[in-house]
Amino acid sequence: MKSRVHLFDTTLRDGAQTSGIDFSLEDKCLVARMLDEFGIDYVEGGYPGANPLDDAFFAQKRTRRAAFTAFGMTKRPGVSVSNDPGIAALLAASADAICYVAKSWDYHVHVALGTTLEENLDGIRRSVEAAVARGREVLVDCEHFFDGYKANPDYARACAVAASEAGARWVVLCDTNGGTLPHEIERIVGELTAHVPGDRLGIHAHDDTGQAVANSLAAVRAGVRQIQGTLNGIGERCGNANLITLIGTLKLKPDYADRFEIGVPDAKLRELTTLSRAFDEVLNRAPNRHAPYVGASAFATKAGIHASALMKDPRTYEHVEPEAVGNRRRVLVSDQAGKSNLMAELARFGIAADRDDPRVDRLLAEVKEREARGFAYEAADASLELLARRHLGGVPNYFDVQSFRVMVERRHNALGELVTVSEATVKVRVGDHVVFSAAEGNGPVNALDGALRKDLGGYQPFIADLELVDFKVRILNGGTGATTRVLIESKDGDENRWFTIGVSENIIDASFQALMDSIVYKLVKSGAALVA
Amino acid sequence: MKSRVHLFDTTLRDGAQTSGIDFSLEDKCLVARMLDEFGIDYVEGGYPGANPLDDAFFAQKRTRRAAFTAFGMTKRPGVSVSNDPGIAALLAASADAICYVAKSWDYHVHVALGTTLEENLDGIRRSVEAAVARGREVLVDCEHFFDGYKANPDYARACAVAASEAGARWVVLCDTNGGTLPHEIERIVGELTAHVPGDRLGIHAHDDTGQAVANSLAAVRAGVRQIQGTLNGIGERCGNANLITLIGTLKLKPDYADRFEIGVPDAKLRELTTLSRAFDEVLNRAPNRHAPYVGASAFATKAGIHASALMKDPRTYEHVEPEAVGNRRRVLVSDQAGKSNLMAELARFGIAADRDDPRVDRLLAEVKEREARGFAYEAADASLELLARRHLGGVPNYFDVQSFRVMVERRHNALGELVTVSEATVKVRVGDHVVFSAAEGNGPVNALDGALRKDLGGYQPFIADLELVDFKVRILNGGTGATTRVLIESKDGDENRWFTIGVSENIIDASFQALMDSIVYKLVKSGAALVA
Repeated sequence: MKSRVHLFDTTLRDGAQTSGIDFSLEDKCLVARMLDEFGIDYVEGGYPGANPLDDAFFAQKRTRRAAFTAFGMTKRPGVSVSNDPGIAALLAASADAICYVAKSWDYHVHVALGTTLEENLDGIRRSVEAAVARGREVLVDCEHFFDGYKANPDYARACAVAASEAGARWVVLCDTNGGTLPHEIERIVGELTAHVPGDRLGIHAHDDTGQAVANSLAAVRAGVRQIQGTLNGIGERCGNANLITLIGTLKLKPDYADRFEIGVPDAKLRELTTLSRAFDEVLNRAPNRHAPYVGASAFATKAGIHASALMKDPRTYEHVEPEAVGNRRRVLVSDQAGKSNLMAELARFGIAADRDDPRVDRLLAEVKEREARGFAYEAADASLELLARRHLGGVPNYFDVQSFRVMVERRHNALGELVTVSEATVKVRVGDHVVFSAAEGNGPVNALDGALRKDLGGYQPFIADLELVDFKVRILNGGTGATTRVLIESKDGDENRWFTIGVSENIIDASFQALMDSIVYKLVKSGAALVA
Repeated sequence: MKSRVHLFDTTLRDGAQTSGIDFSLEDKCLVARMLDEFGIDYVEGGYPGANPLDDAFFAQKRTRRAAFTAFGMTKRPGVSVSNDPGIAALLAASADAICYVAKSWDYHVHVALGTTLEENLDGIRRSVEAAVARGREVLVDCEHFFDGYKANPDYARACAVAASEAGARWVVLCDTNGGTLPHEIERIVGELTAHVPGDRLGIHAHDDTGQAVANSLAAVRAGVRQIQGTLNGIGERCGNANLITLIGTLKLKPDYADRFEIGVPDAKLRELTTLSRAFDEVLNRAPNRHAPYVGASAFATKAGIHASALMKDPRTYEHVEPEAVGNRRRVLVSDQAGKSNLMAELARFGIAADRDDPRVDRLLAEVKEREARGFAYEAADASLELLARRHLGGVPNYFDVQSFRVMVERRHNALGELVTVSEATVKVRVGDHVVFSAAEGNGPVNALDGALRKDLGGYQPFIADLELVDFKVRILNGGTGATTRVLIESKDGDENRWFTIGVSENIIDASFQALMDSIVYKLVKSGAALVA
């Protein structure tokens, strides 16, 4: 029989403490729905009574299956539960569960709360009882539990016992400062389970020593049955335990999967990568390519020596199957790589080629020569695919840029103000026609992009939804005369994303190459026919 | 008595496998020097014989104190050590130590190597002996050690014992796929130490379950005395163990600091944040704000429920003191810290100013406003000093750029070749004269720089030895319309170096600002008098 481990998501509460992250009401509704549908057991939505946003969010229940949870403080010293406005706001919220935060470090009871140890225990008991009486499931987050336990184990334990005896379903052990180490977690949890059973205990870890995930798993091994964490590990300072990573390990590693069960079904596990990236979309930030399980590079191999073995049996270089979490294998072509990598890439692009075809050798030689000049094809899939198709025979010469000119001028305008203007003109032959386009922009690359895409004749419908989403510049060696590498990320209306690259001494020229590759790639993928 | 734990950095070898990272020879020399000076015991530089870059890097020893280490494979099956070109390249390298990678998973010996278990053991022994005979310290990285041990413990152990008995100083246990969990590491290392002593064992962990740091520490607790990792945890897939994080924990957490000693002195620990960020500069990427110990947000608190306790005693919300690692506390309620920093900077520039001077408040406000727009003055001392001198009254208006124009054109030249040319013209008023200069360049910034410095009249002698040594571009948010930050490093004939910055939607405009600051800074420092 497997033990059930419950997942508690605090993305919308503790995660909202992340510097630089601010959720709107719409964001909160969307994230709650994503978590609910994924099979998370508890969705902590925020702190009703603390701000108008959380009041609005708790005006109705936002989950169907998951316990919708409101966070707040235990009753203040010196007032009764019924006269505490914080408790009133929690009880008024449309929540299934209430998660109280309570002091469990004697030092903090004195310094931060300014009350006695006994009054703090009393506040925990009465707050829990009030919520239980109103039919709520109750959790008590014991703040600074591990630091408190190290300073005064009797008192920290007394807080946990008080919460449990008063009727709390869960007593959650918080490593608030994030500095506790896995072996300490394991020892302290082990000692505590003699007083509060493990299936009433939870763990709330932070990543200040880079071990929030390890601390959470150590706690489960020692007996706790609830894990609190956030999507992609967002959170104050270094972040909270990353639930995405934990789900991968709990579901796929036999030492956990054989012993424990979580609410996420196998079918959902295959959407783990999608969940992680969709959440980054909500935050409007680039996903971490190196994230465990779900990063774009999590199953990528650059090494030539590994690539040939990988081709023989991919599983020997992968700790789990990428498909299990909805990710995919990538073999990167790079200057360290050989033919095996390239063949794997061609297969992925759907380009049929024979390993012994001399055109493949010429392609490999060109890739290596270009990488020596600064191209980095592992970061620019679309440019690599175009190069491969050119060698192996399949990229029409859609149009021909005969010349372009970009001008940036800083001058006084008619009002006597100093302004910087950027303009570009482009002369393109499309079929039998020559098109001459001009555009302004807020910088030279922006102007050039505008002019290039302004009028491509019969191709215009295919590139109408093309959008540049990122533009990166790297100077490959020192000085203004150095080589410049430009990497462009594009997307279309169907949310396809592709990366192209350009390298030149001249930043405008490098940008031009990457812009051209982006447009041509889109035409190839759209199956555009040659315009006469 | 504390046990010595040795740190082995593989940033330049395994870290070079990171997708998107390509080191130049200059990068490698710089990173090796940074590691050496920091107190890292082993600096693994690359794979001599595998590519021209690593051959060049190993043409000479690149460290003073640290063991400069070459990586390569054990001898191939079927050839003798003296006929193996890989071994010959390793022995020819200017390295103190040689780190061999050897198969230790029986399955891989068969499938990837295609040889017998005994021949693989023989290859390990002979390869080690050959390097020992040439006076090298030898390490053997047992690839897939933990997966191998789980499949066939006798054989994995036999590989470790063979390496050790043949004279390897270190047998390094590699979790090549990164999927091994801390409790497995602890158990397996514990069993192995009955056969190879812990002070001959190392650990090489990857972050595929987000536990590379925890795995490394679990191995140390079980007996190993060498940790392999990389700066900021770069590396293939999800990365290697993060040495920066590990150094923080090994030096500051009593459970480690009281039992173990590493080569990094306390004074260097206070440069941990600088080391981490300087390495990101080499990679030209934004530092991870949430990195343990060294992230800009690692000690930052959005003052919510913790506000009052934070004000009473900030340290109760910090697991270590930020100053110990050269980081700083950020409590987002206090402007005082900003002013203290600024006063310290003014003192460093030799600018006398009173803390209560309203001009200092205006300067602080402008710095904050500019930093919100993307200026990063901690990386551009000279621009900050100029801004401060302008507010506090001391920068002459040497000259006035009335207008400039930069043009980049791609066209066919007289020979019918497609060329891209860059030209710039600049109109400058110097005293009573207006100078109009033009220059060509291999890119627009190079042309603008040439035109700007071509003729500054009476100032020309002061800037004759000014040289641009580096130019970095960072796009601060996505799209070609995003804000661009340009950072320029300049030097003069006396080897003074200074950094200036420009920020604009327009890359040319941002470059212009940074170029101007560089020239004006040089004139200020040279004590140039105003030209009439």
